[in-house]
Amino acid sequence: MLSPAVIQEEGRRSEGTQRLEAMSDAVIAIAITLLVLEIHVPEEKGNEALARALAEQWPSYFGFALSFLTIGVVWANHHHMFQDIARVDHLLVVLNLLLMMTVSFIPFSTAVLAGHLEAEDGRLVATVLYGGNFLVTALVLNVLWHYASWNRRLIAPDVSDRHIHGRSVRYVAGPLFYGLTLPLALVSPLASLTVYVVVAAIYLIPVGD
Amino acid sequence: MLSPAVIQEEGRRSEGTQRLEAMSDAVIAIAITLLVLEIHVPEEKGNEALARALAEQWPSYFGFALSFLTIGVVWANHHHMFQDIARVDHLLVVLNLLLMMTVSFIPFSTAVLAGHLEAEDGRLVATVLYGGNFLVTALVLNVLWHYASWNRRLIAPDVSDRHIHGRSVRYVAGPLFYGLTLPLALVSPLASLTVYVVVAAIYLIPVGD
Amino acid sequence: MLSPAVIQEEGRRSEGTQRLEAMSDAVIAIAITLLVLEIHVPEEKGNEALARALAEQWPSYFGFALSFLTIGVVWANHHHMFQDIARVDHLLVVLNLLLMMTVSFIPFSTAVLAGHLEAEDGRLVATVLYGGNFLVTALVLNVLWHYASWNRRLIAPDVSDRHIHGRSVRYVAGPLFYGLTLPLALVSPLASLTVYVVVAAIYLIPVGD
Amino acid sequence: MLSPAVIQEEGRRSEGTQRLEAMSDAVIAIAITLLVLEIHVPEEKGNEALARALAEQWPSYFGFALSFLTIGVVWANHHHMFQDIARVDHLLVVLNLLLMMTVSFIPFSTAVLAGHLEAEDGRLVATVLYGGNFLVTALVLNVLWHYASWNRRLIAPDVSDRHIHGRSVRYVAGPLFYGLTLPLALVSPLASLTVYVVVAAIYLIPVGD
Repeated sequence: MLSPAVIQEEGRRSEGTQRLEAMSDAVIAIAITLLVLEIHVPEEKGNEALARALAEQWPSYFGFALSFLTIGVVWANHHHMFQDIARVDHLLVVLNLLLMMTVSFIPFSTAVLAGHLEAEDGRLVATVLYGGNFLVTALVLNVLWHYASWNRRLIAPDVSDRHIHGRSVRYVAGPLFYGLTLPLALVSPLASLTVYVVVAAIYLIPVGD
Repeated sequence: MLSPAVIQEEGRRSEGTQRLEAMSDAVIAIAITLLVLEIHVPEEKGNEALARALAEQWPSYFGFALSFLTIGVVWANHHHMFQDIARVDHLLVVLNLLLMMTVSFIPFSTAVLAGHLEAEDGRLVATVLYGGNFLVTALVLNVLWHYASWNRRLIAPDVSDRHIHGRSVRYVAGPLFYGLTLPLALVSPLASLTVYVVVAAIYLIPVGD
Repeated sequence: MLSPAVIQEEGRRSEGTQRLEAMSDAVIAIAITLLVLEIHVPEEKGNEALARALAEQWPSYFGFALSFLTIGVVWANHHHMFQDIARVDHLLVVLNLLLMMTVSFIPFSTAVLAGHLEAEDGRLVATVLYGGNFLVTALVLNVLWHYASWNRRLIAPDVSDRHIHGRSVRYVAGPLFYGLTLPLALVSPLASLTVYVVVAAIYLIPVGD
Repeated sequence: MLSPAVIQEEGRRSEGTQRLEAMSDAVIAIAITLLVLEIHVPEEKGNEALARALAEQWPSYFGFALSFLTIGVVWANHHHMFQDIARVDHLLVVLNLLLMMTVSFIPFSTAVLAGHLEAEDGRLVATVLYGGNFLVTALVLNVLWHYASWNRRLIAPDVSDRHIHGRSVRYVAGPLFYGLTLPLALVSPLASLTVYVVVAAIYLIPVGD
């Protein structure tokens, strides 16, 4: 039996989801915007030299755009997930913190990729780091969702089991894609990067949620 | 027919606009505040040398101020737009993500402009990059608005068609201005920069929304 | 006479204050947190050398702390001000944007100050830049408040005239202090910096709002 | 006796807790995400050289992860604390500002630690700085909580005395741990760092709040 005081406390506590989402949004928004700081500002003087310098760092723009879109996909997935999650417990906070850690690491692995994409030698290691970052992010996202949805642990009562199942199936695609392309990077880094672009594009294409 | 559960789900989903706006605000706020990091801190010792070094990097202050105001205008427009938009769908999220990408690129093109504004040689390329960034931003903003307002797709029911039309007409001014000044930059970069200042000023002058 | 549709639109519009405050909070929070990036990470090896290098950059810690507290005071004032302001119009948005511009410039002038505080030569210019940044910030804050409170233009109906007057008087203290210490910097930069510390301390001492 | 106007003003004022929390969340989110900027992007060309360079900067990843988790723990504690705190007064704002200052300093001391963890000489000073930053953060957190909970000054009426007492006891563990490990760093920096990992892990293990 709940006393009014306890109910009120629960009422205050229940905004937990909201603050966790706000915190996650902030970290994701900062990580996505910090990406631009990793693009080197060329100091070449002269129109021709500057234009060439700007053009030559196309890997930086590629990395910026791909990471921006991928983090955007993570944000969208995170957002959708928390429309089904109604309550927060301690382990969910911890898992979410780990997810934020992997996301906020992306500007670093993007910078490493951009700095080593052009030369054939070095591209392999940079791509594995980059893809590995995406893979771990996708894995943690799946762990978080499975923890929250297991036996409907933290799920809102109005969400159907079928809906939960559908989400679980869709989310598995992420680690699968990234896991399969990581060995591909050992053979051809560019091929695996192409897959990353395709993965981001698939999520971005409007097929509804 | 909607069951209560579905209605509740819709209720939860409808906060989508709010979280999208919050996310956009965060990215815009970060991009606008990161601008200052691109201003070089002079290490010259001695009052005279320091004062000269500070004065000589006026292009950095110019770029900081112009980009700050322009991003501020984007924020205001984004804000007004979402007062009319009541619902969010997948493609709107994607278009908004693209808009955020172009906005968060501005600190980079501002830094390139600031580094090449003084010397006559190099100014052209830097101005085209800078103006191009603004042009693409204005274009994506227009695409987003037209997508949302086409056949009142995502518009709140209480917004009048006349209001929508007025907004559409006003928003077209952005890409028009930036599109026309881009070739102008080929003739005179300074003239086109003057237009950017005027465009920002026009939006900032209090003529209501 | 207002139709229900218009009332609803007004209802949506009235959240303007909230989004303006959220935006300002974000910019202020980012500016205050970026301060730490301006502190140089010493690379000296060896415990003694490292300890000495860390100790020698005390001006960076001083600048960090003083700017952090001063921006904190701006935040508190901004926050209090918007408890009285009930509505937002276009010019208020523009003035607030200018305020955010002066605040987000502080990490730069803090870095310049920290880099020139130790050597006697150069300290003068750095202090004038730093104090000038504070002075302009305080001035814009006053202009914003006077614009909003003039003839109760944007003030909530329940705020008393006496309360408005009290706030106006208190806020004038800011530009007065910073204005008077700017010439003082020409005589003794350290003396004027001491005043900045005192000003921040006065606002921080718990005498209520 | 309160007039309706005063009640409404109080109503508006009471959102103070919310804006203070939002501000704190923003600062913490930015500090936690800035950590990645302190990781150096290696420019070594060649797969082998790059892999070695990436592996050799393990102290940076260690510092990133440890500081990320520790700031995450501070965030969680701050969040829980403000579920009990119902009102904000001036000194609480000031104490919270000091807490934010110590948190936003962590990226700096993390960078110093990461740069001096490997070489035996220098590790001592870096660890003391790092641990000192954690110690001060934990102390300010305790001062803030004791200020707010003293005689239930700012505590919500429905929070039990036993609950307050429990929180007070738990929070004391932070400064105790960090205080005891600081002298330990003088003997063995690595041993004290191990304790930091353990402290973060203890807070992260799901034992509920």
